[in-house]
Amino acid sequence: MNFEFQNPTRLVFGAGNLSRLGDVVSEYGKKALLVTGGGSVKRSGVFDKAVESLKAAGVEFVECSGIEPNPRITSVARGAEIARTEGCDVIVALGGGSVMDASKVISAATLYDGDPWNMIHHGQENVYVPTVALPVVTVPTLAATGSESNCGAVITNEETTVKSFIQIPLLYPKVAVVDPELTVGVPKDQTAYGICDLITHITEAYLNGIDNTPVQDRFAEGVILTAMEWGPKALANPSDVEARVQVQWSALVALNGWLQVGTDAPYPVHMMEHTVSAYHDITHAAGLSIINPAWMRFAAKSNTAKYVQFAERVFGLKANGPDDLDCALAGIDRFEEFLKSIGCPTCFSELGIGDELFETYAKDTLKIVSDGKGNLPGRPFLSVEDMVEIFRSAL
Amino acid sequence: MNFEFQNPTRLVFGAGNLSRLGDVVSEYGKKALLVTGGGSVKRSGVFDKAVESLKAAGVEFVECSGIEPNPRITSVARGAEIARTEGCDVIVALGGGSVMDASKVISAATLYDGDPWNMIHHGQENVYVPTVALPVVTVPTLAATGSESNCGAVITNEETTVKSFIQIPLLYPKVAVVDPELTVGVPKDQTAYGICDLITHITEAYLNGIDNTPVQDRFAEGVILTAMEWGPKALANPSDVEARVQVQWSALVALNGWLQVGTDAPYPVHMMEHTVSAYHDITHAAGLSIINPAWMRFAAKSNTAKYVQFAERVFGLKANGPDDLDCALAGIDRFEEFLKSIGCPTCFSELGIGDELFETYAKDTLKIVSDGKGNLPGRPFLSVEDMVEIFRSAL
Repeated sequence: MNFEFQNPTRLVFGAGNLSRLGDVVSEYGKKALLVTGGGSVKRSGVFDKAVESLKAAGVEFVECSGIEPNPRITSVARGAEIARTEGCDVIVALGGGSVMDASKVISAATLYDGDPWNMIHHGQENVYVPTVALPVVTVPTLAATGSESNCGAVITNEETTVKSFIQIPLLYPKVAVVDPELTVGVPKDQTAYGICDLITHITEAYLNGIDNTPVQDRFAEGVILTAMEWGPKALANPSDVEARVQVQWSALVALNGWLQVGTDAPYPVHMMEHTVSAYHDITHAAGLSIINPAWMRFAAKSNTAKYVQFAERVFGLKANGPDDLDCALAGIDRFEEFLKSIGCPTCFSELGIGDELFETYAKDTLKIVSDGKGNLPGRPFLSVEDMVEIFRSAL
Repeated sequence: MNFEFQNPTRLVFGAGNLSRLGDVVSEYGKKALLVTGGGSVKRSGVFDKAVESLKAAGVEFVECSGIEPNPRITSVARGAEIARTEGCDVIVALGGGSVMDASKVISAATLYDGDPWNMIHHGQENVYVPTVALPVVTVPTLAATGSESNCGAVITNEETTVKSFIQIPLLYPKVAVVDPELTVGVPKDQTAYGICDLITHITEAYLNGIDNTPVQDRFAEGVILTAMEWGPKALANPSDVEARVQVQWSALVALNGWLQVGTDAPYPVHMMEHTVSAYHDITHAAGLSIINPAWMRFAAKSNTAKYVQFAERVFGLKANGPDDLDCALAGIDRFEEFLKSIGCPTCFSELGIGDELFETYAKDTLKIVSDGKGNLPGRPFLSVEDMVEIFRSAL
């Protein structure tokens, strides 16, 4: 383990904290760009409460609504234009992962004259690395992506059908105001996707990271166990605030860096999924739910000991030693059963996706991230053929 | 769970990183106050390497050596005086917990005209809360206190025999340069004390925190399990860098806030131990090793379910339900056996301490922290009689 780590985002966590939003935002600016997605924050009353809190604190705002579920670079450009024109000095992201991701990129795009797509890794020769950005305050309305307190964002270019990422310390939000009560009205399918999303964030680092990270392993297993215990409670009783609290906290720590630190892990399942959902407007977590178990079965053949540990510690199975592939696969089966039990899809056919573009997804994935020799980094590295085999096993 | 959290300390972690110290420090200042303890950093060659790195980066320095194992407020005042006189603009803490604690308080005392003891909680009417401090870079040479990346410090007033604390966000170090190779030469007894210290930091929050913190519980159990797995490896083979890495990372996360966040836990065992070690110049962790299991047996009677969870998850015991006190006590026995197995004392008599001052310790503890009704906060709250009973059971 040899790494640097710093997550400076201030967390304001707990039921009822939405009412503190205005006071928090007023520490960073006087006029906010209030970024939202579809109409759900308005239908639920969350938008009105946020506005009330901003007004009470004397914070002006202008709206940038309509951020898509897979946020587009054109929306980023639109938000930045509004922020510039209106003279906003702080960004408030009120929504799910897409709103928060878009807001982070808007925060840098507002202070950049060029095309914001230059900031997103998409195989270009020189990625533009911004050095200034407006302060961002995130208010997640879903427990899922962990975007509220990390420095990453995933953006889609609808013209070129490329979905890719930016991840730089500049984009850490100043504050995450996390009020689990906001998730009480989240429908069952989105709640389940959030649980799948957060667990997949964990399995990526856990299964693709370096060896000998015992603390990180225990953290990862602990958050997976917590999500598997409290997630179904939130699904069974959507207004169970305690369950919403535990799922939200699990989602936040799943991707704020505490579990990933020092693991030096690539995210092959995410890379593959991003390519798939660039072609099909599916929920990110639905794609993850399909690809992750299929990928695990492929990867367990070469990284068996880690999957045995997963099977033993998360599912209480008992292996005959660290090379017990049967036990490793049984753990993956149990994991897939869990995903099914909460209503997540585990085959492409469930989403009406056929095998026509499997090779295209694989090749496109390599355009975003590659080892330079035609392989996707991970444990193990994956060729186009490997990826197609994984996709096909999830057909 | 309703809390705010922010730990802004940048971590530079990994074997060999001492050579980067100068570059890191040069980001924050041009002239460092280099704070050290006894002669061990000089005998081990660590001091020379640190100096070499500072010089290579063009950072001047003046020394403040001789910080005591239980750092004294007079040493803080001395360090601040040197920093002021010499015009230091950054503090480098090269040593164990006492050096790092003293350095953090020096960083604020340098910019404060009053008596630095005003900053330390000792029952005074108005605690002085500093608002400015020099930047601090910590370089731990022990894996123990976690002081390298938190905002607390414990200081002793040798005149009044009071040992107490300050804990404010201002005192977060800017950077922790954590090089586990520096701990390879740490003697066995100090290595064992470090393991005890880090585990006690965890049990305090785990056993005194609020209910329903499942993620934090898993984190806590995970770090204890890791310390119990890798600690004995570091003791068996002191030059096993991998074991030193895992123990050091465990010690850091044990008290950087990730495990404690949201638990709202008081630290009764620490409060009692500080009073004992204010009277006897014993290693902090030796006092913890004696008091913690004794306190656990007392507390398990009223908080049984949590101790049952501890017994089951950390020691693999099987309980007959959450009120199985026998199982809870068996877990504590196993924990005490572990402490003995690594060479830590578990009775006062092992350190030549009798029962003469038990009531004094208890009463003095309440002078530092009390609920206003003569009880020490914790689960359960402890009266003077309770504390004396706990001390006596560890005689």
